[in-house]
Amino acid sequence: MIAPDRVPNIAIIGIGLIGSSIALAACQQAGAEVITLFDLSEEVRAIASELALGQVCDTIEATVAGADLIILCVPSGAMGQVGSQIAPFLKSGAIVTDVGSVKAAVAEQLRAVLPEHVFLVPGHPIAGAEKSGPEAGFATLFQKRWTILTPLDDPRPEYAQAVDIVCDFWTKLGSDVELMEPARHDLVLAMTSHLPHLIAFCVVATAEDIETVTDSEVVKYSAGGFRDFTRIAASDPTMWRDVFLLNRDAVLDLLGRFSEDLTALRRAIRWGDGDTLFKTFERARKMRRAVIDAGQDIDAPNFGRDKLN
Amino acid sequence: MIAPDRVPNIAIIGIGLIGSSIALAACQQAGAEVITLFDLSEEVRAIASELALGQVCDTIEATVAGADLIILCVPSGAMGQVGSQIAPFLKSGAIVTDVGSVKAAVAEQLRAVLPEHVFLVPGHPIAGAEKSGPEAGFATLFQKRWTILTPLDDPRPEYAQAVDIVCDFWTKLGSDVELMEPARHDLVLAMTSHLPHLIAFCVVATAEDIETVTDSEVVKYSAGGFRDFTRIAASDPTMWRDVFLLNRDAVLDLLGRFSEDLTALRRAIRWGDGDTLFKTFERARKMRRAVIDAGQDIDAPNFGRDKLN
Repeated sequence: MIAPDRVPNIAIIGIGLIGSSIALAACQQAGAEVITLFDLSEEVRAIASELALGQVCDTIEATVAGADLIILCVPSGAMGQVGSQIAPFLKSGAIVTDVGSVKAAVAEQLRAVLPEHVFLVPGHPIAGAEKSGPEAGFATLFQKRWTILTPLDDPRPEYAQAVDIVCDFWTKLGSDVELMEPARHDLVLAMTSHLPHLIAFCVVATAEDIETVTDSEVVKYSAGGFRDFTRIAASDPTMWRDVFLLNRDAVLDLLGRFSEDLTALRRAIRWGDGDTLFKTFERARKMRRAVIDAGQDIDAPNFGRDKLN
Repeated sequence: MIAPDRVPNIAIIGIGLIGSSIALAACQQAGAEVITLFDLSEEVRAIASELALGQVCDTIEATVAGADLIILCVPSGAMGQVGSQIAPFLKSGAIVTDVGSVKAAVAEQLRAVLPEHVFLVPGHPIAGAEKSGPEAGFATLFQKRWTILTPLDDPRPEYAQAVDIVCDFWTKLGSDVELMEPARHDLVLAMTSHLPHLIAFCVVATAEDIETVTDSEVVKYSAGGFRDFTRIAASDPTMWRDVFLLNRDAVLDLLGRFSEDLTALRRAIRWGDGDTLFKTFERARKMRRAVIDAGQDIDAPNFGRDKLN
């Protein structure tokens, strides 16, 4: 394994929003000397070369052969397959991490295919945007955001050091790092990320389908709230499909609770029960205050977008 | 009625986000000479005086007695009551308009209580923010936003001129004005504004109630999507209670459709039907593009809030 004070040679597989942002940040903030990158799409590789994100390789083998730290930035459903492809070429003592939004299922997939002589430290930066692809990346994406690592139950004495190295890497990128059990990660993220995304996708789909209101009316008057949902619902469809398939149980559980709560509100509307509505709405304000106080959003009205108009 | 080329004396009842923004914009952009304001809360009146929003009056009578254009900026559920209170003091030919988010019910309430010698032109600026109160107002709130007017079936020959005056007023505030049937307004807004808000309130309530994830975890990892919902859910609870009670039928209809669509997605997750998920998510991206092309949102990732951090 590499010495803890050395900046590792980094390989990035999958050059989307997250992969390209890591490349930029690793170069500018972590001082990485060698960054190799690979993407299955020839077009994406060409764009990554133009953007000078690092050494773009034509094969997986060339990408990972010399790497100390391999970061898998592909959709969660593709992790196992990519793991099998890199497995034969990984050098002894290399550390493999990932950025998948689901942790238990991804760790299981990777554990099954990676060789014994590497260290697997699954991870997830809680950062993103509705834009996808290598052009969407920016170096400050991870700043002041949380990155969760879900270390395995690996008995080897060097494993703790591998976790430290990955932790240190994300810290250099500006993240606060937290360690968590994979199942807990999947439950917490189902609430803070997966459920909100599913609901945003669904609201936009409902709006598209109603015959009595045209698409153009929906678009025209979207400033009343709907436009915020369209932003969330513009996130990468492949990535999100995989999230819901791989974190099924936690998402279904929360969906059940959400549907119950929505039914209660629906009933309150039908029966003219203003008190129930008011109390529910009032509680929501406190949560907003807490999010802002925790530095997880800015306090400017409308996310401050009016200032940028 | 006032001459079309004269800037009217304006009275604003209700000094919240919208009322204070109208006062600021009317002074700065519409060149209004006299702006009188009233709010039921003594505290709010004191703040409005400090903010120099106009002539803050201590009684409704003093506020509306000399006004050519009276703008009601109270929650939709209070319109009828406020209408009765101003009725005895309105001068002949005065124009009454409002900013309620629901139009059919509000117009009916006001029509029942206003005197014959005034002109009622119900309206709704599709603009707002999650902040409430007189301090939250700003003069550019209505710029590049739509304002919908829902004129009555009023046979008087001067009525069209009254509509023109209200239309002209909003245009000076930077709005694009559109005329619409009240029922159509209520249906379109149920989709673009009322349903998204109800769902955001509900997601935040669900998050608060789950025992297995703490509030602090929800807040800490909210950058994954949840924080956007908290912003929408931080809007004024009284205003929103009234919206749902007064636009009941349209909201219940859409809630029924949304619940069906969500059930379909839930089923797709349960049965591992990735195709259905992917297709639904992909459709949502097009809607985002349309919203941006229509100038109803900015194209910067994350609403551009990262730039303001």
